[in-house]
Amino acid sequence: MKSYLEMNAQELTQELAAVKAQYDALAAVPRKLDMSRGKPNPAQLDLSMDMLALDPATLTHTASGADARNYGLPTGTDECKALFADLLGLKPSNIIVGGQSSLNLMYDSVARALLLGVYGGSKPWGQQGPLKFLCPAPGYDRHFAVTAALGFELISIPMTPTGPDMALVKQYAESDPSVKGVWCVPKYSNPTGITYSADTVRAFAALKPAADDFRIFWDNAYCVHCFDGQDEELLNIFDACREQGSEDMVYEFASTSKITFGGAGVSVIAASENNIKFITKQMGVQTIGHDKINQLRHVRFLKDAAGVRDHMKRHAAYIRPKFECVLNALDSEIAPLGIAHWNKPHGGYFVSYEGLPGTATRCVALCKDAGLVLTPAGAPFPYGKDPQDNVIRIAPTFPSPEELAQAMELFCVAAKLAALETLTAK
Amino acid sequence: MKSYLEMNAQELTQELAAVKAQYDALAAVPRKLDMSRGKPNPAQLDLSMDMLALDPATLTHTASGADARNYGLPTGTDECKALFADLLGLKPSNIIVGGQSSLNLMYDSVARALLLGVYGGSKPWGQQGPLKFLCPAPGYDRHFAVTAALGFELISIPMTPTGPDMALVKQYAESDPSVKGVWCVPKYSNPTGITYSADTVRAFAALKPAADDFRIFWDNAYCVHCFDGQDEELLNIFDACREQGSEDMVYEFASTSKITFGGAGVSVIAASENNIKFITKQMGVQTIGHDKINQLRHVRFLKDAAGVRDHMKRHAAYIRPKFECVLNALDSEIAPLGIAHWNKPHGGYFVSYEGLPGTATRCVALCKDAGLVLTPAGAPFPYGKDPQDNVIRIAPTFPSPEELAQAMELFCVAAKLAALETLTAK
Repeated sequence: MKSYLEMNAQELTQELAAVKAQYDALAAVPRKLDMSRGKPNPAQLDLSMDMLALDPATLTHTASGADARNYGLPTGTDECKALFADLLGLKPSNIIVGGQSSLNLMYDSVARALLLGVYGGSKPWGQQGPLKFLCPAPGYDRHFAVTAALGFELISIPMTPTGPDMALVKQYAESDPSVKGVWCVPKYSNPTGITYSADTVRAFAALKPAADDFRIFWDNAYCVHCFDGQDEELLNIFDACREQGSEDMVYEFASTSKITFGGAGVSVIAASENNIKFITKQMGVQTIGHDKINQLRHVRFLKDAAGVRDHMKRHAAYIRPKFECVLNALDSEIAPLGIAHWNKPHGGYFVSYEGLPGTATRCVALCKDAGLVLTPAGAPFPYGKDPQDNVIRIAPTFPSPEELAQAMELFCVAAKLAALETLTAK
Repeated sequence: MKSYLEMNAQELTQELAAVKAQYDALAAVPRKLDMSRGKPNPAQLDLSMDMLALDPATLTHTASGADARNYGLPTGTDECKALFADLLGLKPSNIIVGGQSSLNLMYDSVARALLLGVYGGSKPWGQQGPLKFLCPAPGYDRHFAVTAALGFELISIPMTPTGPDMALVKQYAESDPSVKGVWCVPKYSNPTGITYSADTVRAFAALKPAADDFRIFWDNAYCVHCFDGQDEELLNIFDACREQGSEDMVYEFASTSKITFGGAGVSVIAASENNIKFITKQMGVQTIGHDKINQLRHVRFLKDAAGVRDHMKRHAAYIRPKFECVLNALDSEIAPLGIAHWNKPHGGYFVSYEGLPGTATRCVALCKDAGLVLTPAGAPFPYGKDPQDNVIRIAPTFPSPEELAQAMELFCVAAKLAALETLTAK
């Protein structure tokens, strides 16, 4: 195969016709494929079915003797805090256990900051005029949606192979008190799959924000989600912060959504004891507390951090071939053409495909017309606008292996066609 | 026994000495009794243990084929909506299923109204300057705490035997656009135990608030919680609203906290389809969704509204003797003395004791010093301040029968002592 970038006009026109014919043939077959969201396959959910078959007698009481079935313990059970503390390298006193959605904890944290303020802040965010939030992009669309809906101006920060552009983060955070926070997925980042380098983590910890109430939203969603045995080390941000005296600047989040069930998991917020005490008081007004039986269910099933890692090996065995399928297809079909590059992640749920500028929206539309749903082009960017229109998030876990093979065949043809249309239009 | 109100000074002094001796004798015995919260007894929680022993295979999929274990269905499963719709006399399209805490849904509803606004409102509540909320009192302390924490001025509305003083509700709501809502526990009210009359419900439905974004927070927490077979009828507020075209004015809340588990239940918000569509859109940013497996667990266990009512008969069999114990003690020990009156509820979780003015704080302190924790005096009032200092909320469900008998013996002596101290101080 010859790189499209080396083809002359005639070759490109011929190739366009050939690829168009391939696309038309594929599109003529009715199909319903979905690579739009980082959604576990049912086979992965089956891995946690034993959690639904636990002896009810083991689910009623915590080690401290509290009745998990009744009111009480608004910040969660001790054993569930211990499990997450172990996973995140923190103490149980750094943990509040939430409900089944960590996104809900993040939204709540922003909403509480707006309405009531954060620890150490002089007044609620919502009483300080127009506000801004830093959004490393490409990033997680639902993060950006929270701060967009709640009225923040979203500031796009370019992503690099080692994390967000920290010079820019520092510049914004340290010069402008209306910048109240930054969204981060520090490990196996959504969607680029990279893990922040130790220098990046240290640079976050060393920030001296202009605002006295700035918070780093550290969404460690993929902390145990390596799928190929080559786990990447993420420096514990609280360790880095301790050196700087900046522990109060970080809210960390995690959940079991992609460990047990995305529809019935457990989530946590982790923070300094100052923050935890402050949030606990605010939360005392907000809720009676979250589901403690489900917390015990998770602890009985997963046991401890080692148990979680064992369990994740079973997910890895399922996920790894999915990523191999995607990467093999791209390597064989796209790499020689010079029209795109992409990450080769060791964990997480996504491959981030970066094609020629101006081709992402077209490629997604071509796929959709042929029966394959992808994340809308632009979604990983603030306001859904990809300035280059070249990033496509591929989420390979949900389709079955057969569906995924079909989906990637179609995707590669659509990606070629979109590239050729752009190249021939020049 | 002679009424204290008919005793002369000498008789009162003698009685004070006698009761003081009784109190000292009781207080000399160490004890740890708690009638402070409307908390089910473990025996009630045992009634729902079968819900934790369901076949896992029945918990994975909804009737529509959705995988409850995975992401999706942010507003809940169809069958759980149908169950609550049936209970509340509404349609499934009027229901959003939440997490385990209905208080959290209420807080969220106020927070969203502040930050984002409500259906039909011209702008978010939070952009309209100082706000007020109507608080029928005595009422539920956690309701008042939500609006106090979120910055509202709390307006106390006297409760009557048929519900809140509706002339006053109407006057505030219809004259002042900064009045944004009203808290209601319309059936077996917390703590007075009364059910709003049909006229009261119709008066709510007929409100023409000055604000275009006023909401009635209708916390139907005790909708199926009759314990003596004499269930009181509550007019469906949405039926009343339909006649007035005011369906969009109501948010109704309910939960299984006192049906299954206070620590692992399911909650709902019920509202007009206009409201539900509007809230669904706002919630789409807030959360991935709540625990769907727990929704299915509840549906499999409770089955339907008839199943819920059957289940509640088992709670009633447990609760009824508790209330009889409280009421018998008050009838025999306090009634002849003319120093208090109280409600005799057919459902709910509370007896509201109204003693002589100025005695509630003292009575609660006397109980506490002798080892019995009661809800702090004043708690059922805005800002925790009972203007008469005469209301005490008695929550009889949590103590065992033996503990309850001890607690009521102590309570009656403390109530007498507090009354006598006041009467002799005159």
